[in-house]
Amino acid sequence: MTRLLKIAYIGGGSRGWAHTLMRDLALCPELNGEIRLYDIDMEAARQNQSLGNWLQGQPGVLSSWQYRLAASLGEALDGADFVFISIQPGSLDLMEREIAIAEEHGLYYPVGDSTGFPGLMRGLRSVLIFEKFAHAIARYCPAAWVINYTNPMTVCARTLTRAEPALKVFGCCHEVFNAQEILAEVVQKARQLDQRPARDQIKVNVLGINHFTWFDEAWFGEIDLLALLRQHLAEPGARRFYTQAEVEQENDWFVDFRQVKYELFERFGLLAAAGDRHLCEFLPGLISSPQELFHWGIIRTPVSYRKQRYIDSPRLIRSYISGETQFDLRPSGEEAVRQVKALLGLGDFVTNVNLPNAGQIINLTLGSVVETNALFSLDSVRPLLAGSLPPGVHGLIATHVHNQEALVEAAMTRNTDLALQALVNDPSITIPLDRVWEMFTTAGLPEGW
Amino acid sequence: MTRLLKIAYIGGGSRGWAHTLMRDLALCPELNGEIRLYDIDMEAARQNQSLGNWLQGQPGVLSSWQYRLAASLGEALDGADFVFISIQPGSLDLMEREIAIAEEHGLYYPVGDSTGFPGLMRGLRSVLIFEKFAHAIARYCPAAWVINYTNPMTVCARTLTRAEPALKVFGCCHEVFNAQEILAEVVQKARQLDQRPARDQIKVNVLGINHFTWFDEAWFGEIDLLALLRQHLAEPGARRFYTQAEVEQENDWFVDFRQVKYELFERFGLLAAAGDRHLCEFLPGLISSPQELFHWGIIRTPVSYRKQRYIDSPRLIRSYISGETQFDLRPSGEEAVRQVKALLGLGDFVTNVNLPNAGQIINLTLGSVVETNALFSLDSVRPLLAGSLPPGVHGLIATHVHNQEALVEAAMTRNTDLALQALVNDPSITIPLDRVWEMFTTAGLPEGW
Amino acid sequence: MTRLLKIAYIGGGSRGWAHTLMRDLALCPELNGEIRLYDIDMEAARQNQSLGNWLQGQPGVLSSWQYRLAASLGEALDGADFVFISIQPGSLDLMEREIAIAEEHGLYYPVGDSTGFPGLMRGLRSVLIFEKFAHAIARYCPAAWVINYTNPMTVCARTLTRAEPALKVFGCCHEVFNAQEILAEVVQKARQLDQRPARDQIKVNVLGINHFTWFDEAWFGEIDLLALLRQHLAEPGARRFYTQAEVEQENDWFVDFRQVKYELFERFGLLAAAGDRHLCEFLPGLISSPQELFHWGIIRTPVSYRKQRYIDSPRLIRSYISGETQFDLRPSGEEAVRQVKALLGLGDFVTNVNLPNAGQIINLTLGSVVETNALFSLDSVRPLLAGSLPPGVHGLIATHVHNQEALVEAAMTRNTDLALQALVNDPSITIPLDRVWEMFTTAGLPEGW
Amino acid sequence: MTRLLKIAYIGGGSRGWAHTLMRDLALCPELNGEIRLYDIDMEAARQNQSLGNWLQGQPGVLSSWQYRLAASLGEALDGADFVFISIQPGSLDLMEREIAIAEEHGLYYPVGDSTGFPGLMRGLRSVLIFEKFAHAIARYCPAAWVINYTNPMTVCARTLTRAEPALKVFGCCHEVFNAQEILAEVVQKARQLDQRPARDQIKVNVLGINHFTWFDEAWFGEIDLLALLRQHLAEPGARRFYTQAEVEQENDWFVDFRQVKYELFERFGLLAAAGDRHLCEFLPGLISSPQELFHWGIIRTPVSYRKQRYIDSPRLIRSYISGETQFDLRPSGEEAVRQVKALLGLGDFVTNVNLPNAGQIINLTLGSVVETNALFSLDSVRPLLAGSLPPGVHGLIATHVHNQEALVEAAMTRNTDLALQALVNDPSITIPLDRVWEMFTTAGLPEGW
Repeated sequence: MTRLLKIAYIGGGSRGWAHTLMRDLALCPELNGEIRLYDIDMEAARQNQSLGNWLQGQPGVLSSWQYRLAASLGEALDGADFVFISIQPGSLDLMEREIAIAEEHGLYYPVGDSTGFPGLMRGLRSVLIFEKFAHAIARYCPAAWVINYTNPMTVCARTLTRAEPALKVFGCCHEVFNAQEILAEVVQKARQLDQRPARDQIKVNVLGINHFTWFDEAWFGEIDLLALLRQHLAEPGARRFYTQAEVEQENDWFVDFRQVKYELFERFGLLAAAGDRHLCEFLPGLISSPQELFHWGIIRTPVSYRKQRYIDSPRLIRSYISGETQFDLRPSGEEAVRQVKALLGLGDFVTNVNLPNAGQIINLTLGSVVETNALFSLDSVRPLLAGSLPPGVHGLIATHVHNQEALVEAAMTRNTDLALQALVNDPSITIPLDRVWEMFTTAGLPEGW
Repeated sequence: MTRLLKIAYIGGGSRGWAHTLMRDLALCPELNGEIRLYDIDMEAARQNQSLGNWLQGQPGVLSSWQYRLAASLGEALDGADFVFISIQPGSLDLMEREIAIAEEHGLYYPVGDSTGFPGLMRGLRSVLIFEKFAHAIARYCPAAWVINYTNPMTVCARTLTRAEPALKVFGCCHEVFNAQEILAEVVQKARQLDQRPARDQIKVNVLGINHFTWFDEAWFGEIDLLALLRQHLAEPGARRFYTQAEVEQENDWFVDFRQVKYELFERFGLLAAAGDRHLCEFLPGLISSPQELFHWGIIRTPVSYRKQRYIDSPRLIRSYISGETQFDLRPSGEEAVRQVKALLGLGDFVTNVNLPNAGQIINLTLGSVVETNALFSLDSVRPLLAGSLPPGVHGLIATHVHNQEALVEAAMTRNTDLALQALVNDPSITIPLDRVWEMFTTAGLPEGW
Repeated sequence: MTRLLKIAYIGGGSRGWAHTLMRDLALCPELNGEIRLYDIDMEAARQNQSLGNWLQGQPGVLSSWQYRLAASLGEALDGADFVFISIQPGSLDLMEREIAIAEEHGLYYPVGDSTGFPGLMRGLRSVLIFEKFAHAIARYCPAAWVINYTNPMTVCARTLTRAEPALKVFGCCHEVFNAQEILAEVVQKARQLDQRPARDQIKVNVLGINHFTWFDEAWFGEIDLLALLRQHLAEPGARRFYTQAEVEQENDWFVDFRQVKYELFERFGLLAAAGDRHLCEFLPGLISSPQELFHWGIIRTPVSYRKQRYIDSPRLIRSYISGETQFDLRPSGEEAVRQVKALLGLGDFVTNVNLPNAGQIINLTLGSVVETNALFSLDSVRPLLAGSLPPGVHGLIATHVHNQEALVEAAMTRNTDLALQALVNDPSITIPLDRVWEMFTTAGLPEGW
Repeated sequence: MTRLLKIAYIGGGSRGWAHTLMRDLALCPELNGEIRLYDIDMEAARQNQSLGNWLQGQPGVLSSWQYRLAASLGEALDGADFVFISIQPGSLDLMEREIAIAEEHGLYYPVGDSTGFPGLMRGLRSVLIFEKFAHAIARYCPAAWVINYTNPMTVCARTLTRAEPALKVFGCCHEVFNAQEILAEVVQKARQLDQRPARDQIKVNVLGINHFTWFDEAWFGEIDLLALLRQHLAEPGARRFYTQAEVEQENDWFVDFRQVKYELFERFGLLAAAGDRHLCEFLPGLISSPQELFHWGIIRTPVSYRKQRYIDSPRLIRSYISGETQFDLRPSGEEAVRQVKALLGLGDFVTNVNLPNAGQIINLTLGSVVETNALFSLDSVRPLLAGSLPPGVHGLIATHVHNQEALVEAAMTRNTDLALQALVNDPSITIPLDRVWEMFTTAGLPEGW
């Protein structure tokens, strides 16, 4: 394969995901080309450019990529084959402020990027940003594959496809991978396997929406993993609650004791894929106090932590380049490069993605963005039929689908009332509607509304 | 019209609605026949029988009805032309207990008969009861019109039509009438009319589900009443909150300051028909404390009040018969008799009823019971197209429709998990799912599950 | 009612329907105002103007209307309260030619204005014309009620609502009235009634599409008219076929022996409302030869007859004005005036109309124009739920709905292929697709395509 | 893989497909076990048994299978892992008679097994037969995979899934393979490739119903095959018509000049997969005379030919066993064995199959059987989303879907009227409905109705 790819990277100053991509591209001999980094924080993009180009000469690198800085969105996109989008919609200060407003009303969001008050507020401004992306892509590279990593995933992907229906868009998230790892761990232990099965040997049927997607089947060969998990949870100690001290001593903002996942599994019969930090934000009552969160083994990720990572990044990049810190060149486990290869005809495979619902989940709204398995092949991402959500889980999910659809509609038509209505209908926002209005007006409408 | 009607009255010991019906039948010269009172509390039915038969001789009575006691459901139903159902599903003790369990978890339901924890629990046992009614009606009087007044209306009516799809069922409720009266009051005041318009001169398009149905249009002649109401609410003092003292000094368990209705109207643009006591039970956060309820001008109706009415009833009936108390012989304003007449070909008219959705609200689940206008004519109740719910209100209602459908499914298939799942998904139940499970198991499954 | 109405009449030179309207308006004391006649044949409109204004002074006339000539569409529409549309889409020569082309391919259409080859070709040009009407109405009188009488009804009404979704459009046709008259005749005979019941005492549930709409229920009081008709058809001689001589001796281009209607009724169980001349055009094989048509008692209406009526018209109008011919001042039996009155708040009633499907027939495409009952009231035409078509009749109708939708789509997007595809799929066009293409290219695309 | 499979073969006396299966199983080293042959013609099954068992000792055979005769359906099915169904529903005499009845009414079906008069009549009796199969499978081997090869495919598969919704059913047909071969030929010629691409290198998106399924995309690597075909058809001579002599001199009952396929492609833009012999039966007018068929290059397969094959079969089997005729041991190109292997976890792959529509074609009736691609994997056949049919092709297919659904409903509920209604609505049956009734009553209802 000698073809030279052009990749546009919107949010090219990204601290996490950009480095993962660099790693995986470096290890893939079949793909070469250029990556145009575009970011409203140009300095951050410039640092990633240095890192990316420095990497080309390093031992173990099997490909050749040129990292370039794009001065404008158009320059990044012009003629691109692929567009990656991984941005922070709005500043971390804004995120911090919205989480704080919610706390003033008794709502304690541990993440705040997908749903609930801060997630939906972030969604509103994402629509305004992604509308522009959609139109720019339609203008500069209408045939490109557009891969979104930004949260709120559903709202961002939905905006792209609603604003420009002809674009080829999908969205990726690794929460499903984590759940597959959990099942791999369960089967290894239950069957006393020497080796943990590889993640992609855990076959799952995925159905739901991002960060609230579920498995109704999971198999390792002929072993029914949901049945196995049910046995596992019946063992003493598998299901329990936690104290603040127990949670805090883990010293990990991302600690996950999976008790929300398991409670949902016991009560609803399907396995939710995302981590508890996300799941609790889709449900009523779990975020009603820090104590309630601790009870389930969850700790809030402070936005200050995210800010610090941001501040630390330039030094980290310099230390990679200086050799002071070793840049990790092992495969990340992410699938972006495998997906790109499949789309170029270099190997079909099935994985989960976020796509507009064209029938893959027959009892969710057509057109809304859902997460299911799909077959990747040459220039094609075709969903597999995921089937129908059972009534109980359908009840949980359908509300969020309504709200996300309403939110995108609200922002695209600048309909303030409808935006509020979506907030009132969010299951995690358990306060009276006059107080929702208060939160909403305190936070204010996004710039450019 | 000399035809003699046979009316079966299930719940014939009813204290409220039975007397209303007696009154209206007494004033209707076109209808005569017999009414078979059936009740598991036979003594209560017997008292109503005495009252009903005593009434026949009274001045002002224009018709002739024979009230009979039916020893069994079959005896009541056999060959009936109409079946009225107005029962208390389960004892008042049960109702009191379920409301108390909810209060222990911080949920304060002012009524508890339609939705929320006590409403859904009442729903579960109603399904078991109404399944039996459905089969009995199908056996003894398959061509009868079946008119339900029992709450939870939607669940009861849905059970009848799901268990026996060929039955001719509709459900009636006067909440819409009350809202029409409010609008009549508004227009009288705004336009300084000498006389308040009659309720049925207030033309409304009704769409939603019982106790959570809405008007998207309301007219008095060419006057747009929703626009008028909007002006009215903009006046100083129209929108306000209340103190406990203000509410309590009304000394009325049914006091309604309409602030929930008006808040919903301001935020969602449509007018919810039911009283605030019901509305607050369909929404998150409003029932979170007695103070929150007082804040909106709502006081909880104690079940002890309902019990007292029940205890007082025999004495009241005796005092009617003895002449000590004057039995009220003015038209009640209810529509049962007008409906019966229309179904007999004695005058078409349009009114609101609860019917299975066959397209009248195109964006709610087909088959679920919805409340809209319908044309009553000879042996026919045909819904008028109510149209589509706007996204915001749709979000509020669709969740309840899902839950009601799930609940009926759960009870008809004795699926305990699904029953719990409906509870978890109820917007007024704002507590974590493990606590919902606790409430549920404390309350226990209905008899006969 | 002193309000002065403004009525725009598009196709104001119409020979038939305009005179009917004049008659009924003349007899209605509540309505007065002006009628602006607009026609591409201005001379024809001028003649109608003379007639209309002459009529005002005549004995028996109870209202006062001013008939004016509009020089342009805009002049006719400007500020109108009602818009009537009754045009000939394309010349009679065109119609004659398309019918002749079809005959060359063995297809003998007796009417040719609704479906089949000439109906669909007429439909194509109607879309182009009605698109313009829609935009003009939206510009000059967006709040007007628009009442269409033009065939092909479904295509014309659909174009108006698709081009300008906010317009208030419905379409009227008297075929249902004729079928009610047939049932009135049947019940009079069967029950030996002295008097034939009035048409609107025959209560029917209407469901289908214009000229192919059906009754699944028909009642005169408590008498089931479909059951009665079934008995009637079982009598000797009720069902039979005809010879050419028998048909021709009737000397009536509109003769209707109802044998297609009755055959459909026997085989499908529902009663088709339209006359056999229309029905046979919706079905396969009936128009395959003049002999086949005679067999069913149908004779083709020659376009020359329509042309002659057109030629005779000026003389007829002159002879009305001169008093040589008596202008008929009895009520026509049409409902236009009654509808206008209802929309002005002067009396609600239920009748059948053509409206976009918003759920009234749940198993036909939403948005397509269907014919059902609707409640007319102040500024409102609200469909009654007609229910679901049974599978057999659904099969017959759904094909036409697909074709009509495809045809409107084809013409609005100038998609020639799609137009052909609709023709190929028409059940009356029973010839191979290459020959359909031949007919289509021979006839040619409409002007302005 | 040492697991021994149990395969039930209903129609085990089959002359064609049984031998193909024997061949492919013989060449597959991973699969072994027993095959139970069941047939109402036990002698035919016995002959296949001899052949199957004889084959085991032959050179080149890589597996070991025991062929057994099953005296009853239950014996064949008991505990089976797979069930193959390949029967003749009703005798060839019946088929011959129905084709002859149609000819008397001017309808000349070249095949008569899928649609049109003989196809639908065959469908009616298939429903009665497959209902029994469904219940027997549900009783004796509910977990088995059931693979149907019988025509009419859609009706047979639909009956199985409607009668026993829990069965795991799919249906297979090689018409799509043939169309892939045509495209392979086209690309080889156009690009002057040395070698014709293998069939499964031709990637197609399949959407439609059996024998009337279509490709809206077809690729060989990055070469757009539909675009290529369009160029090919523009060449002189590619599109033409035929004389009777030209067709007859081919001396092949299955000759296919593809002119129906190409005409449909030119007019509708999608490529129909089946051969012209099938396609012409789904369309109006093409079967109106033998001359019309010759015109398109089609000759009717006489049923006498099928009978002769049947008569010749025992001799042919004897001559295989005696060594007189060489039994062909090359891979057949069919996919049954590959599918079985995939279902056993021995290699995932994507191919086209007939399955109940659960969203894979979003604008066809849910539940009806459609033909699309699906992913085969361990104990799973999961459809890929095929998308939406464009309006023109949708029009052609939807009618057949309605009719097939009506037919299955008709036969399962013994509703004679509905069966007739489906016939009247068949596009190939271009005669008046009274004559359809005549054909229908002449043919008579199937045994056991």
